[in-house]
Amino acid sequence: MSSTTPLRSLNINNINPHVKEAKYAVRGELAVRSEEYRARLAKGDKSLPFDQVISANIGNPQQLDQKPITFFRQVLSLVEYPPLLEREDVLLNQLGYKADVIERARWLLETVGSVGAYSASAGAPGIKESVAKFLERRDGFPAEAKDIYLSAGASSGVNTLLHIICASPKTGVLVPIPQYPLYSASLSVLNARCVPYYLDESKGWGTDLEAIKAAHKQAVSEGTDVRAIVIINPGNPTGASLSAEDVEAVIGFAAQEKLVVMADEVYQTNVFKGKFHSFKRVLRELQKVDAEKYKNVELASLHSISKGMVGECGHRGGYFELCGFDPEVQEEIYKYVSISLCAPVVAQCLVEMMVNPPQEGSPSYELYKQEYDGIFAGLQKRATALYEAFKEMEGVECDEPQGSMYLFPTVNLPAKAIEAAKKESRTPDEFYAFRLLDATGVCVVAGSGFGQKEGTLHFRTTFLAPGTEWVGRISKFHKEFMDEFR
Amino acid sequence: MSSTTPLRSLNINNINPHVKEAKYAVRGELAVRSEEYRARLAKGDKSLPFDQVISANIGNPQQLDQKPITFFRQVLSLVEYPPLLEREDVLLNQLGYKADVIERARWLLETVGSVGAYSASAGAPGIKESVAKFLERRDGFPAEAKDIYLSAGASSGVNTLLHIICASPKTGVLVPIPQYPLYSASLSVLNARCVPYYLDESKGWGTDLEAIKAAHKQAVSEGTDVRAIVIINPGNPTGASLSAEDVEAVIGFAAQEKLVVMADEVYQTNVFKGKFHSFKRVLRELQKVDAEKYKNVELASLHSISKGMVGECGHRGGYFELCGFDPEVQEEIYKYVSISLCAPVVAQCLVEMMVNPPQEGSPSYELYKQEYDGIFAGLQKRATALYEAFKEMEGVECDEPQGSMYLFPTVNLPAKAIEAAKKESRTPDEFYAFRLLDATGVCVVAGSGFGQKEGTLHFRTTFLAPGTEWVGRISKFHKEFMDEFR
Repeated sequence: MSSTTPLRSLNINNINPHVKEAKYAVRGELAVRSEEYRARLAKGDKSLPFDQVISANIGNPQQLDQKPITFFRQVLSLVEYPPLLEREDVLLNQLGYKADVIERARWLLETVGSVGAYSASAGAPGIKESVAKFLERRDGFPAEAKDIYLSAGASSGVNTLLHIICASPKTGVLVPIPQYPLYSASLSVLNARCVPYYLDESKGWGTDLEAIKAAHKQAVSEGTDVRAIVIINPGNPTGASLSAEDVEAVIGFAAQEKLVVMADEVYQTNVFKGKFHSFKRVLRELQKVDAEKYKNVELASLHSISKGMVGECGHRGGYFELCGFDPEVQEEIYKYVSISLCAPVVAQCLVEMMVNPPQEGSPSYELYKQEYDGIFAGLQKRATALYEAFKEMEGVECDEPQGSMYLFPTVNLPAKAIEAAKKESRTPDEFYAFRLLDATGVCVVAGSGFGQKEGTLHFRTTFLAPGTEWVGRISKFHKEFMDEFR
Repeated sequence: MSSTTPLRSLNINNINPHVKEAKYAVRGELAVRSEEYRARLAKGDKSLPFDQVISANIGNPQQLDQKPITFFRQVLSLVEYPPLLEREDVLLNQLGYKADVIERARWLLETVGSVGAYSASAGAPGIKESVAKFLERRDGFPAEAKDIYLSAGASSGVNTLLHIICASPKTGVLVPIPQYPLYSASLSVLNARCVPYYLDESKGWGTDLEAIKAAHKQAVSEGTDVRAIVIINPGNPTGASLSAEDVEAVIGFAAQEKLVVMADEVYQTNVFKGKFHSFKRVLRELQKVDAEKYKNVELASLHSISKGMVGECGHRGGYFELCGFDPEVQEEIYKYVSISLCAPVVAQCLVEMMVNPPQEGSPSYELYKQEYDGIFAGLQKRATALYEAFKEMEGVECDEPQGSMYLFPTVNLPAKAIEAAKKESRTPDEFYAFRLLDATGVCVVAGSGFGQKEGTLHFRTTFLAPGTEWVGRISKFHKEFMDEFR
C-alpha cells in the first residue's frame, strides 16, 4: 500500500467538513488542559503553583458551590425508587421528608408511569400542561401544552429548531456577538450561515437595533436567506439583562423582516439589575396594541433546568415554547424530536418542579425559599466581589453585574503581550487565558471563543466558585502579567 | 399582502427538506392514533371496542410489565438525594437497602461529584473506566476508557457517528433492510445516502454476504462513496441473533472495502437462541489470526441501558466504544459531543451499574439475580406464546424467537385487502396495522416502516406486554380480517 493511500476509512481530511469547522471553546483546549491539571492534583502532584482548579469556564453550578434544592432531590429520590412511598412513616418521621414531597412524587409517577419508560416524544403530557400553566402565570397570557416541547437541556432545543430552520447553505441566522458558541457551532455543523450582529458594549451589552439592521441588510445583499434571529436574554457571555424596549425593538424588526425569533431565556431567574422581560409577554402585549403588525411573528422561547437557582445541568432538562408557528411545521418538529425518542424523564420531572415549586403555605416552602434566596444572594455577592476586583485591575474594564452567571470584562493588553501571543500562534486573549490557568488554576474562556469586535479583548468567567480567594489569585496574576509585558 | 406570499418565515415548503424527508414510523401516525385512544380511555370513553391500549410498537419495557431492578433504583435514590447516606441505620434496618447499595452510591458520587453537574463531555472518567473493565471481561481483550463515549441512549451515539462519517451528499452507509428506522432517518437528515442491503428471511434474517457485496457494488457504480456498514445484532426489527461466522464475514468485507463497522449491539443480553458474539471480540480474534488483513478495521460498537433486563429507556443512557479509529478523528468526535455538553449523569450512573452489577457473594446479588432471571424468563415466555399464536394464524409466517424484543412476522394478505388499502392510500401492511389498532387497541408497526422486500408484508411487535389476553385479541382480529377480505 502506498504511503499516500489512507489506511483507514476515516481521517481528518475526509470526515464531515462541517463538523470540523465547528468551534466550541467553552470545552476546548483550555478546558482540556484544566482537566489535566485537576487529574494531576488528584494524583498528589505537588509541582503546580496552585492546589485547586477553578472551572470558571462553564456555568456548572453544582460542580462548584451550589447545593441542589432539597425539595427537588427528595422528590427525585422517590420517583427513582417508588417503593419508598410505601414507607411514608419513615419518610416523614425519620428522614425529614414533608407531605408535599410525597404528594409531588406520587403525582409525577402517575403522570410519567415510570421514569425508566420513554415518554411521549415531546414530553409527558401532564408535565407540558404544568409548563403551560407556569407560562400563563409568568406572562399573563394563554399558553398551551401542545406548543411546549420538553428537551434534553436548552442545547437540544436549539439544535432541533436550527435543524428545522436551516434549509440550505444560504440560510442565515442572526446571532449576537459575543454569543454562546452553541449557536455558531450548530450553524457550522448544519452548513448554514451565522450572521453576526454586535452587541453594544457601551450600553451594557444591550441589543443595538441599528447594528441588527445593518447586519441583516449586508447578509441579504450577499444572497443570504436570513430566517431567524437569536437573542440571549439575560446574556451569555455578557450577562446583560435587556430592557422591555430592547425586546420590543427586536420583535418589531422580526415582524417586519419575517424572522423567527429564538429567545434563549435560560438565565431568566438570574437577574440582578432591572427585571426579566420575556419575549412571549412582550410579543403578546404588542399584539394587543397592533394585532395586524405582529400577528405572524414566530417565537420560540427556550428555558432550562441547568441554570438559575435550580442548577441541575447534569440532568439535561429544558423546554421550548412555540408561538405563531405553522401547525405543519410543528408536525415536522414533532417528527424530528421523535427520532431521538424523548428527553430524559427524570429531567422532565425537574422541569415540572422548576416551573411549579412549593408554594407559600405548603410544608416544603420555607426551606425551599431559604435555599432559593440563599443561592441567589450568594451569586450576587460573588458577582459583586469579582466586579470590584476587576475594577481595581490595570487595563480591565467591566460592567456592573446585571444577570446570568458571567462577567465578560475587557482586557487591554500591552503590545509586548500581543507580540508574545503571536509567537505562540495564539490570539492575545487566549494567550492571557492560558497564562492565567497555568499560574492560578483558574480556567476562564477567552473572548475570541464568543466573538468580539476586532481589536478588543475579553474573557468570560462565571462567578460560581465559592469564596473570594480565587479572585485574589486572578488579581495577583494580572499584576504580574502586566509587569512582565508592560 | 398577496395570497401567495407566505405569512410566516417558516412553512412546510421552505423548512429543511432533509428533515421533511426523514421517516420514523415507530412513533408515526399509528403511534399518535394509539395515544389518542389511550387518552380517550383515560377520560372514560366507552365507545371503543377495547378497554386498554397495548403499545407493542416500541421497545419500552417499563411502560408495560417490566419492573426496574431494585439495586439500580435504590442506588439512584441515594445519588439523587445524598443526605440519605447520613442515615445508614434507617436505610439498612428499616428500608431494606443493603450495604453494597450504599457503597455503590458513595462511589458514584465520588466519581461524578453531583449528578446535577455536567460531567466531562464524553462521560465521567471513572464510569468510562468501569465500562472498559466490563468490555475486557466480556471479550477477553483490552479496552481503554479513552475510547469509550457515554451517550444519551444509543440513538445519540448513532447520531454522533453518522455526523462524523457523512462528509457529503455522496457519502453512503450500508444499512440492513429491514432496519430500525433511526438509521435511514438520520441519514436523511444528514443528506447522505442510505445503501440498503437485504437480510435473508429464509435464514432467520441473518446477514447475507452476497447481498451486502451486491448492494455495495451497485452503490459504488452509482458514484456513492460508501464509508460504513451498520449491523444490528441481535436484530431490530427482526430479532435475529447472528452467528460468529456472519460477524466474521461482515468484518472481512469491511476490512477489504475499508468500511467503518457500526455494530448496534443494544440487545446483546436479549438472546434466546445461540449466544451473543460481539464484533469487538470477533475482530480481535481475527486480528490474532491475520494481523495484517484486519489491522485497520474501524469498529464502533454501541450499547444502551434502554433494553436488556435493564430496560431504563426513560433515563437515556448508553455508550459506544471505538476500535482502530484515527486519534485525530476521535478528537473531532470529542468536540462534536462537547457541543451538547454531556449525557445525563444519572443515566451515566445506570450505565456503570449495568456493566458492573452486584456480584455473587455481595448482599444485593440474590435479589438482583432473581429479578434479572425473572425478566429474562418472562420475555422468553411471552415471545414463545406470541410465536405460537402467529403459527396458528392463516397466512402468517414467523421465525422462532432468537433475540431482541421483537417478532417480525410475514403476513400474506388477500387481494381484496390490498385493494382496500389502495383506496385509503395506504400500503397494505399499514392498512392492516391500522385495522388491528382500531379493532383491538394493539399498536404494532407496519413492516414498511423498517423496509421489506418488494411484494412482502410484515409487522413488528414487541413481546413486552404482560399476559397473553392481548395475543388472543390479535388472533381474533386476524381471523375476522381474513374473513372480511378473503
